Amino acid sequence: MTEAKRAVVVGVGLIGGSIALGLRKAGWYVTGVDTDADRLALAVGSGVIDDITSLEEVDGGALGVVAIPVGDVAGVVQSLLDAGLDVVTDVGSVKAPIVAAIDDPRFVPGHPMAGSEQDGLTGASEDMFSGATWVLCPTSSTDGVAFASVREMAVSLGAHAIAIPAERHDMLVAVVSHVPHLTAATLMRLADGRAVEHRALLRLAAGGFRDMTRIAAGHPAIWPDICAENADAIVDVLDELRVELGRVRDAIADRDRDGLLERLEAARVARRNLPTTVSAPDKMTEVRVPVLDRQGEIAAIAALAADLDVNIYDLEIAHSTEGPRGVVVLLIETALAERLQGGLMALGYRPSSQALDA
Amino acid sequence: MTEAKRAVVVGVGLIGGSIALGLRKAGWYVTGVDTDADRLALAVGSGVIDDITSLEEVDGGALGVVAIPVGDVAGVVQSLLDAGLDVVTDVGSVKAPIVAAIDDPRFVPGHPMAGSEQDGLTGASEDMFSGATWVLCPTSSTDGVAFASVREMAVSLGAHAIAIPAERHDMLVAVVSHVPHLTAATLMRLADGRAVEHRALLRLAAGGFRDMTRIAAGHPAIWPDICAENADAIVDVLDELRVELGRVRDAIADRDRDGLLERLEAARVARRNLPTTVSAPDKMTEVRVPVLDRQGEIAAIAALAADLDVNIYDLEIAHSTEGPRGVVVLLIETALAERLQGGLMALGYRPSSQALDA
Repeated sequence: MTEAKRAVVVGVGLIGGSIALGLRKAGWYVTGVDTDADRLALAVGSGVIDDITSLEEVDGGALGVVAIPVGDVAGVVQSLLDAGLDVVTDVGSVKAPIVAAIDDPRFVPGHPMAGSEQDGLTGASEDMFSGATWVLCPTSSTDGVAFASVREMAVSLGAHAIAIPAERHDMLVAVVSHVPHLTAATLMRLADGRAVEHRALLRLAAGGFRDMTRIAAGHPAIWPDICAENADAIVDVLDELRVELGRVRDAIADRDRDGLLERLEAARVARRNLPTTVSAPDKMTEVRVPVLDRQGEIAAIAALAADLDVNIYDLEIAHSTEGPRGVVVLLIETALAERLQGGLMALGYRPSSQALDA
Repeated sequence: MTEAKRAVVVGVGLIGGSIALGLRKAGWYVTGVDTDADRLALAVGSGVIDDITSLEEVDGGALGVVAIPVGDVAGVVQSLLDAGLDVVTDVGSVKAPIVAAIDDPRFVPGHPMAGSEQDGLTGASEDMFSGATWVLCPTSSTDGVAFASVREMAVSLGAHAIAIPAERHDMLVAVVSHVPHLTAATLMRLADGRAVEHRALLRLAAGGFRDMTRIAAGHPAIWPDICAENADAIVDVLDELRVELGRVRDAIADRDRDGLLERLEAARVARRNLPTTVSAPDKMTEVRVPVLDRQGEIAAIAALAADLDVNIYDLEIAHSTEGPRGVVVLLIETALAERLQGGLMALGYRPSSQALDA
């Protein structure tokens, strides 16, 4: 059967529009829902979606993608699930509150780490997710088949999918996205305040400052929501940042050259080791983990891999033709295979592994 | 007379080497001084300088350019002045301590706002200063002719020269360079610390974080010097940053959506208004200011223009053929001509101005 896969995208903005474009390019039939009728019309007219639909008339056989402000996600996800969709995912940038609100095996929480300075549908691009990391946060109730289909969608858009628990995701995005954004905005305001009446002098700002503050030029409308949803993690990281900046300040005031140099050297090493866009290592190993086909297995395995710092490059679920058993097949770097196998065995799994030819 | 202009560059690293390359390309004869004999040999061998010299045998007719760590600048500048050079400039990134140490009309303190992630002579490029802002900090004792020749050198390397008082320069670079650098390094260390044992998860870091922390990858060796020389301004700005980040934190903890949005909106406006690389406006006016040809006139006029937020696109000193009088010719944006003229008259000058054809 080669009938087109179908998706319904709720929220046809920058991210939703980009997903719609990418899926259409991959041959999907995509309908769109949006509170803004003009935007919907533009989306149809410009070929971003095939047709317009509404939450009341969504198609049960479609994959639901919710791409709206993070504070509104849970309600719409629930509507789509109530309407009978088999699989629903979202792209909200904070995950724990959504995971806490929705307990349904058909919901696969997600967050593509992509974006653009250009806001809205006009910034949408089918290449938006090429090479990006797409985080999925399966929970103990996530269905394996639902997870696999969302993962496959993310990969078909060119993203690298990784699975980590929602709480860890939220802490990490506070560190690598939310607090850096707030800091960039604060630095920009501070420079503007200091240069008041001398704005032309801000042209002293060289490339480094421009790079650091570029994200502050983005539309701020999404941030109150994000900050409200991820308040605890953001406050925690901001507190640590202020303490650390205080230590830097003291090192400078005390003329502690060695202390300062040590901090900067550590930062240099960390920055140089910052992992770049995922590219699969040369030597890969397939790890097969027999599981009972029950809820929570994927979440447990993904959480273990994250704990052990093992990236999962691919994940499949092979169901046995008879009975409730299946096999989760993981593709990981060969150098880390023993580590993951050890962890799996400690949890009572009985994995086997096989190195693949390069 | 078309004899080649001569320069002696002390410190043939990233910046000194780039200046040497640019001047040689413009037809200058450039000799180099460095404490590192291997680097000097490389500089000659790779055509960065014409020949090697030493502080003991510098050529009195050459322009001296001191491009060494900021803590060592004043001593070497004094050596060059003692050796009889007519004009000496430096490229140190903190200016007030150097200005305080050297009181000589032949010294024109400077700071090209350019750099590269690539350290050392191998990163040097004749294009390093193309479009960059080159700050000059004339003092009340700076000679007009010395100032004009350094300014001309900067312009010949493709830079846009602006003149501001040393103290203002130091405060501004604390805001747009030093504190952002220290903040980038701190954010990077913090992310690294939070991701410990899960480094692969740092690949969640999208472009924004990469942009913000890129400067932290640079070699830290220059920073203890910079932080020591500009300690007061840096500590002051770091304190303000910590206070402001505390306010952001409180707005988030208190769920103050409006307060947060207001801050982010202000930052967005400021970032969008950040002056880009200097490009001359369409309508320019030449302002002619008769002066007694005495020390301090240029510094006074430049300080006034900076106070009034009027950028000086070009500056020439036309000496009268007889007597001590001269005319400082300034090229500024027509829209700001009245403002500058008013300020000049308030200081007792008698400027005249003429709009230029576009």
